[in-house]
Formats: sequence, C-alpha cells, structure tokens
Amino acid sequence: MKSKRVPRAVREQQMLDAAVLTFARRGYRAASMDEIAEVAGVSKPLVYLYLNSKEELFSAVIRRERAALVAAVTAAVQPGEAADRQLWSGLRGFFAHTAEHPAGWAVLHQQARTHGEPFAVEVADMRAEIVAFVTELIGMAAKEAGCVGELAEREVAGLAHALVGAAESLAEWANTRTDEGPSGDQEHPTAKDAAATMMNFAWTGLGHLMGGERWTPGGAGGEGGRG
Amino acid sequence: MKSKRVPRAVREQQMLDAAVLTFARRGYRAASMDEIAEVAGVSKPLVYLYLNSKEELFSAVIRRERAALVAAVTAAVQPGEAADRQLWSGLRGFFAHTAEHPAGWAVLHQQARTHGEPFAVEVADMRAEIVAFVTELIGMAAKEAGCVGELAEREVAGLAHALVGAAESLAEWANTRTDEGPSGDQEHPTAKDAAATMMNFAWTGLGHLMGGERWTPGGAGGEGGRG
Repeated sequence: MKSKRVPRAVREQQMLDAAVLTFARRGYRAASMDEIAEVAGVSKPLVYLYLNSKEELFSAVIRRERAALVAAVTAAVQPGEAADRQLWSGLRGFFAHTAEHPAGWAVLHQQARTHGEPFAVEVADMRAEIVAFVTELIGMAAKEAGCVGELAEREVAGLAHALVGAAESLAEWANTRTDEGPSGDQEHPTAKDAAATMMNFAWTGLGHLMGGERWTPGGAGGEGGRG
Repeated sequence: MKSKRVPRAVREQQMLDAAVLTFARRGYRAASMDEIAEVAGVSKPLVYLYLNSKEELFSAVIRRERAALVAAVTAAVQPGEAADRQLWSGLRGFFAHTAEHPAGWAVLHQQARTHGEPFAVEVADMRAEIVAFVTELIGMAAKEAGCVGELAEREVAGLAHALVGAAESLAEWANTRTDEGPSGDQEHPTAKDAAATMMNFAWTGLGHLMGGERWTPGGAGGEGGRG
C-alpha cells in the first residue's frame, strides 16, 4: 500500500464508500468496523478517528446517500416542463440512480428504516420530501388537464403515495435481478424500461382519471347480485 | 382477575394478540415480555411456558398475521370472475384487512422485515406469493383483452411489483392517518376508497396499455432536441 498522504476529505469519502458496500452486504448489525476499514484500505483506528462510531458512520452514510438520491432526481427534472414530462424525467433519474448505486439504495430502503429512530427519521424525511414533490406534480397535471377540484386533495395525496411505493418496489425488484451477474444485463430492466413501465402504469391511468374516466366495479357486470 | 381455567389455545391467542400490539407499538427490540404478559393479563412465566422466547413469540405472531392477511385477500376474491374484478376484490380485501388490523400490518410491513433472516424470509415469502397472484391476474387480463405477447413477461412482472408496492405504501399511509383518532374517521380513506384509488390509478392505465396505448416522452414535445 502506498503511504502517500491523502487529504482527509478524500479518505472520508473512501471510508463512506466502503461503509455503504459493507452495510448493504452484511446489514447494519452484522457489519463490522474491521471489514469497513479493510474494504477502505485504512486502519480501524483511522476510521474511528474520522467517524467516531459505527452509529455515526451509519448516519453519515444515510445522509450522503439521501442527498445523492435527491440530487439525482432533482437534476433530472426540468422545472419549466409539463407535469407528465417532469414526472417521467424524475422517475428516470430515480431508476438510473438506484440502478447505478444498488448498495446505497439497499441502505436507504432496507437498512436505514429498520434500526431505530435517528436513522429511520432521516429516510422518512426523504420519503416525505419525494411524496410532496410528486403530489405537487399530480396537482399540476390535474390543473393542466383543466380538472381543478375534480381530483380531491386526499385522492391526489393517495396517488402520490401509491406512485412512490410503486417506484420503490420496482427499484428493489430491478436491483434484485442484477444479482444474476453484471454481464447478464439483458436480464435486468434499464432505468428507461422501469420509468416507462411506471409511466404506462400510472400516467395513462391518471390521464384518463383526470378526464373523468373511472374504473367502477359495476363495469364488468354489476356489483354483486346481477352476476 | 378471574382464576377460571382458560383452554391453552385461547390463552395462546390472547398472548399473540397482546404481542402484536406490543411489537407494533414498541418495535421488536424494545418490546418486553413483561409488557406482553401484562397486556395479555397473564404472568410472564406463563408466556415463556407457552411460547418459549421472544424470538419464537415474534415468529408465531408473524406466521399468524401472514396467514390472516393472505386468507383475507383470498377470501375476498371470486376465482371465476374477470381479472379486473378479481383484482378489485383482492385489493379491497387487502385494504379492509390492513385497516382493521393496523398492528398486524405494522408488524408485517415494518417490524418483520428488519430484524434478521428467519423473520424477513417469512414476509418475503408472503410478498412473493402475493406478487405471483397479481402477476397471474395481469396476465389473465392481458389474455382477456386479447393482447397475448403484447405485454412482455418481464413487463407484467414489473407491473405486478409496482402494484404491490403501491398497495403497501397506500395501506401504510392510510393507517398513519388513522392516528388522528378513532372517532375522526372521516379523515382516513376507507378500504373501498383505497381500492378505488388503486384501481383508477393502475387499472385504467393498464387497460389502455393493453389496448396498445402507451405514454411516450415524445408525446409532450419530443425527446430532447426538438424542444
């Protein structure tokens, strides 16, 4: 190993990179500071010197991965565009980022929510931020479609939660499939595929919903009795 | 307290009822056998005698809540009906059950996934079971709509994952809102509302998707260059 001096900020990012991989692979509790130091190529005391404790390291990882994900989604969106295009761009940014950073996504989606308050709150805040953004876009789209008041506020909020849950689930599924091997990537959907699936799934439905077209249980033969 | 003899099976269900509430309220790690015994109205040694350890009690709770949720969804569906009605009925059964059993849903959706292998596997199995069922329904619907081969197998699987994720997220959101108080239930969506939101969101989109109508990024002004 070279003993060349590496600036503190660079070393810290190397440690966080190693921590993301280790937390994603082992889970928060089973991950050891020994392994993180080894993956980072530094000594364990240096990890403690820079990041204090496993708890603080985990917190730093969550904050960094949260910021990176939100930045990726935000950067993908052009604020001036039509709501459906903004959502498309945001979804594509989301799926591209989660596919490129599967360990970061695993830490945010699986690990961070499950090990107590300070970590779970960070992810809940991020999710609330994203849900608020999507709620705004759906509201904008409703306005653009000229149906103000038609979609009740509660329904818009419900739709936003449904959309975010759908995207999370799809990202998790897409990343699980990449486990088949990095070379066999004809097997896993690309960010564009995933975003297109979501838009086809949600947006055409939403579009017709805004146009006043609704699915009703009566549509296929009446509710109950009339069989 | 009455000292009347209560059959073992009844006592066990009382303990599991108390355990579900306590695990949902405190989280798996913070929940104590003392509190569970107190809520159940029995002595702590009796809980250990019947259910051995906190791990086994948690496992028993997960198995019971999983079986109850799957039974509720299955019972809601009429196998002979059209695919869209089966999905409507299943969703309604799912939202009704999760609204009536918020603690059970919190244990399955939040607690069970986050405390290691044996518990997480149980929930992953349940989820896989539900995704397989939804995949089959979407496949059936595609067949009924006469578009076999049109929706690629991979896309059907993606849509099923998206739909399940959306329903989970919506159920969580709906239950969070009930925290405003049991009497203020004009505030939280009913199972029928939630199922209708999902069907409007997903099924009309899916219907048009099957009809060959797709959202394209070009629709609102062209991809990139053409402004």
